[in-house]
Amino acid sequence: MKLSKVLSIAAIACLGLVSTAAAEIKLSKAQMDEATEVYFDRCAGCHGMLRKGALGPNLEPEKMKGMGTDTLKYIIHEGTPGGMPEWGKSGELSAAQTDLMAKYLQVEAPQPPEKSLADMKKSHKVLIPVKDRPKAPEAKNWKDYFAVILRDVGQIAIVDGVTKDVVSVVPSGFATHITRTGASGRYMYVIGRDGKASMIDLWMKVPKNVAEIRTCNDARAIDTSKHKDYLDKYAVVGCYWPPSIVTLDADTLDPLKIVSTASYTYDENVYTREARVAAIIASHDKPEWVINIKETGQVWLYDYSNIKNPKITMVEAERFLHDGGWDLSKRYFMTAANARNVISVIDTKEGKLVANIPSEGNKPHPGRGVNVDHPKYGPIWGSGHIGSNDIIFIGTDPVNHPKNAWKIVKKTKLPGDGGGNLFVKGHPNSPYIFADRPVHPDRKLQTQIYVIDKNTLEVVKTLPIDEKYLKPAKAPNGKEVQARGPVHFEFNADGSEVWTSIWGNKLAASPILVYDSKTLKLKKVIDDKRLITPTGKFNVTNTMNDTY
Amino acid sequence: MKLSKVLSIAAIACLGLVSTAAAEIKLSKAQMDEATEVYFDRCAGCHGMLRKGALGPNLEPEKMKGMGTDTLKYIIHEGTPGGMPEWGKSGELSAAQTDLMAKYLQVEAPQPPEKSLADMKKSHKVLIPVKDRPKAPEAKNWKDYFAVILRDVGQIAIVDGVTKDVVSVVPSGFATHITRTGASGRYMYVIGRDGKASMIDLWMKVPKNVAEIRTCNDARAIDTSKHKDYLDKYAVVGCYWPPSIVTLDADTLDPLKIVSTASYTYDENVYTREARVAAIIASHDKPEWVINIKETGQVWLYDYSNIKNPKITMVEAERFLHDGGWDLSKRYFMTAANARNVISVIDTKEGKLVANIPSEGNKPHPGRGVNVDHPKYGPIWGSGHIGSNDIIFIGTDPVNHPKNAWKIVKKTKLPGDGGGNLFVKGHPNSPYIFADRPVHPDRKLQTQIYVIDKNTLEVVKTLPIDEKYLKPAKAPNGKEVQARGPVHFEFNADGSEVWTSIWGNKLAASPILVYDSKTLKLKKVIDDKRLITPTGKFNVTNTMNDTY
Repeated sequence: MKLSKVLSIAAIACLGLVSTAAAEIKLSKAQMDEATEVYFDRCAGCHGMLRKGALGPNLEPEKMKGMGTDTLKYIIHEGTPGGMPEWGKSGELSAAQTDLMAKYLQVEAPQPPEKSLADMKKSHKVLIPVKDRPKAPEAKNWKDYFAVILRDVGQIAIVDGVTKDVVSVVPSGFATHITRTGASGRYMYVIGRDGKASMIDLWMKVPKNVAEIRTCNDARAIDTSKHKDYLDKYAVVGCYWPPSIVTLDADTLDPLKIVSTASYTYDENVYTREARVAAIIASHDKPEWVINIKETGQVWLYDYSNIKNPKITMVEAERFLHDGGWDLSKRYFMTAANARNVISVIDTKEGKLVANIPSEGNKPHPGRGVNVDHPKYGPIWGSGHIGSNDIIFIGTDPVNHPKNAWKIVKKTKLPGDGGGNLFVKGHPNSPYIFADRPVHPDRKLQTQIYVIDKNTLEVVKTLPIDEKYLKPAKAPNGKEVQARGPVHFEFNADGSEVWTSIWGNKLAASPILVYDSKTLKLKKVIDDKRLITPTGKFNVTNTMNDTY
Repeated sequence: MKLSKVLSIAAIACLGLVSTAAAEIKLSKAQMDEATEVYFDRCAGCHGMLRKGALGPNLEPEKMKGMGTDTLKYIIHEGTPGGMPEWGKSGELSAAQTDLMAKYLQVEAPQPPEKSLADMKKSHKVLIPVKDRPKAPEAKNWKDYFAVILRDVGQIAIVDGVTKDVVSVVPSGFATHITRTGASGRYMYVIGRDGKASMIDLWMKVPKNVAEIRTCNDARAIDTSKHKDYLDKYAVVGCYWPPSIVTLDADTLDPLKIVSTASYTYDENVYTREARVAAIIASHDKPEWVINIKETGQVWLYDYSNIKNPKITMVEAERFLHDGGWDLSKRYFMTAANARNVISVIDTKEGKLVANIPSEGNKPHPGRGVNVDHPKYGPIWGSGHIGSNDIIFIGTDPVNHPKNAWKIVKKTKLPGDGGGNLFVKGHPNSPYIFADRPVHPDRKLQTQIYVIDKNTLEVVKTLPIDEKYLKPAKAPNGKEVQARGPVHFEFNADGSEVWTSIWGNKLAASPILVYDSKTLKLKKVIDDKRLITPTGKFNVTNTMNDTY
């Protein structure tokens, strides 16, 4: 963002500060309903359902009234240098909606709904009973299937990792966030941002949803029981709202237990109603889920071995926990506290924080991160940043490489200024780590793949995407809308291929590009008219084994 | 209560139902403040800060508007057969206050305040630093001291169990609920209903408060770390509001950690903001507090061994958990879910519910209960009821007496109809269990002590209190106010004496009566003008050892 834009926001903000004596804003029920829905879909993720702020600032009415309608409209339209999208300019919100939202922020937010077990059960459907499901896999390659999130159409494409065929497209929740397999890999569990969980049976010739339930109004996390004594027994959803952990039967998604995550911030001990579950990861060694509670900065180790009497260790970590993944040994959970620029390390064996490591960049965003067994540093784990061009690698082996443990052993810079990275991904059989940059404003930097050598940990190559895969789509009003660059990577089961997808828009299909993970040659373009906004991709075998 | 009264309430309730179209009630800020304070002091305990109900019914405005001001005034004045006190008739509330409260219930309740660690620290005072406290006990009999709660004046009397001298009277919180010692017995920890915690150093020649803090706005529970590795290390307060568990340094009451207890009901999984901590008891075998969460019906086993990362096992038990205590082995926690007429048994070794036993009476109220090693039934635990005359005994030894385990082996009836019992108490060296009945409306039944033989488990004797100890006090308006009968028992350290106190009112002192626990002779009357409303009594040695 240019300085002039920053200054004009500041100027308008000052204007806003003197215009607080304006008449009281009243919205009709229809306007409140529309604004609540827009807020929920576009704003709550960063600013919180109760508007108390998280990655984005606090938006409570008293503060917003001080800024005034004009300032708020400007910011909603133009975005901010701090990461607020240009909702108006990008066309996501109409002029009328921009005006409505500027006003909505100045009135008291409606109390968001609660959700009991009975409420959840109303939405619970077993679409195909267990007895009617296949007794054995009906397709050969199911362990090399990819679940591909078709984000803006609320669907999941199941793509055969061997044949590259789109074998099925199944409906999911709104703006699906992630998918995870059970421990055996048979079922792919899906969570939408609207809190709808669904499960796809990959043993079916044409995989379908076999059960679904809406456990939350807003969610980001799902996982399963991966300990050997509880294989395929439970699924678990982490809710943004109501802030809670919901345990489900892994065969039917029947809801079994809700635990609230509302509690006190770890540092100042301030009560926080909106303490959202940002990520869940399943231990392989213990009957335990590792759960990031964003606003309170706690990692909860949730022992599910006695489902009626869960045992939860509430580990103090750092505030605004976001995403994270296992180290190579699967003992340490490496997770980003994004608004604090910290990587927290949790020792799940001892049930305690090992370190809060400054990430030396702006807004770390690891996804689950990337693991490398490095010839010099030993096992290391890496993450990129949304807000800066730093890819960092942290030593994770305190036994054999104690000098490197919990330190940044290497910081790699993506070329050019600015961040924009969302994901890095690796596989033991690939000599390279791959990084994307889909939210970088520069078109060239946004539309290439960054290839990092596992030995030097430097960017050794960039793979620009051919313009033919980035074709703009035509909107109903005749305007051309550009596709974003590639987003997210996933390897096939043996690691010989790395897949990425073009983050198009919902006006047109966009392809999945398959590269050879050693030669870096583009091997295959999966171009299917059903692939609308393909984003996250999850290979069954790699997801089962937490290989990344 | 007479049938005519019940019918007149019903009739007025019907009247109320047709008068809902009345003008909207508005209260001034001064009226709201007064009513909020009265509600907090008199109503919240049974009906909840958010008026959602617990032991008493839900009082939310929509329902109250349906009843109307006249009905509500009548009920507040007269009480109900279900246990609602006669607030107006008894003179506790003036006519103007009764009218105000009837209106207050029909308007939206103010949001009760939150309390952060910083808020608590503002009220934290170390009155005598550790270094300035005695290095050795300055008085001989401190291990046989009694802390006596002077309820209505917010004080604690320290009474020498040997000499019967009142050695000190120290200030405490409002309407102190209980006191507990640390594991070594040196400090007596006190919690007021207003959430003020204080600690008295019993090693001082004249024991004084050495630290205090207000951890909650409303509280009922305090205990300490009793495991051998954590002796005198932590104290813990359980709050009614904000619903939470607060860990404190046991030497200074410096607040260390707050955990919210707001969660989902164990059975229906409904979110419950007001999930109050009704009781806490410390394990002797594990670094663990056993915590009753009233509204959600969960018993939390709180592992405090790593204070920054508490580990909590959330055991499903029964809703509306109130008070409870250890069985004889100190492995099983025996606790009443009073509004459900159930005794829940928690196995703290296995961390699970053993049984929910119907109490076969109305509103069990064990305090910590009473333990007996019975010649026939083996170890048993007993409780009385507020709402019926049943004293029940439950077998607690599944190993050597499996047929009796978790069953009512004996039900003893107190003479006459009605309940009114609050406490039963025993000691290994006493052949008798003692029971009170201070909330029974019949004057004769209210003012005698019930002596239960430990072998027959029958009431073998009643000890009427001489009228000279029950003298009415004269109120400023010239009206005579009766003292209630004896309340609560405690033994001296060797169990040779049992103490009870006359539950007078704050207009005059009332005595502590000391009986020989074998001969049942009244040995001593402790009559001291400072003993105003003596209620709970806690002997240092018995409290340290959980002997009851």
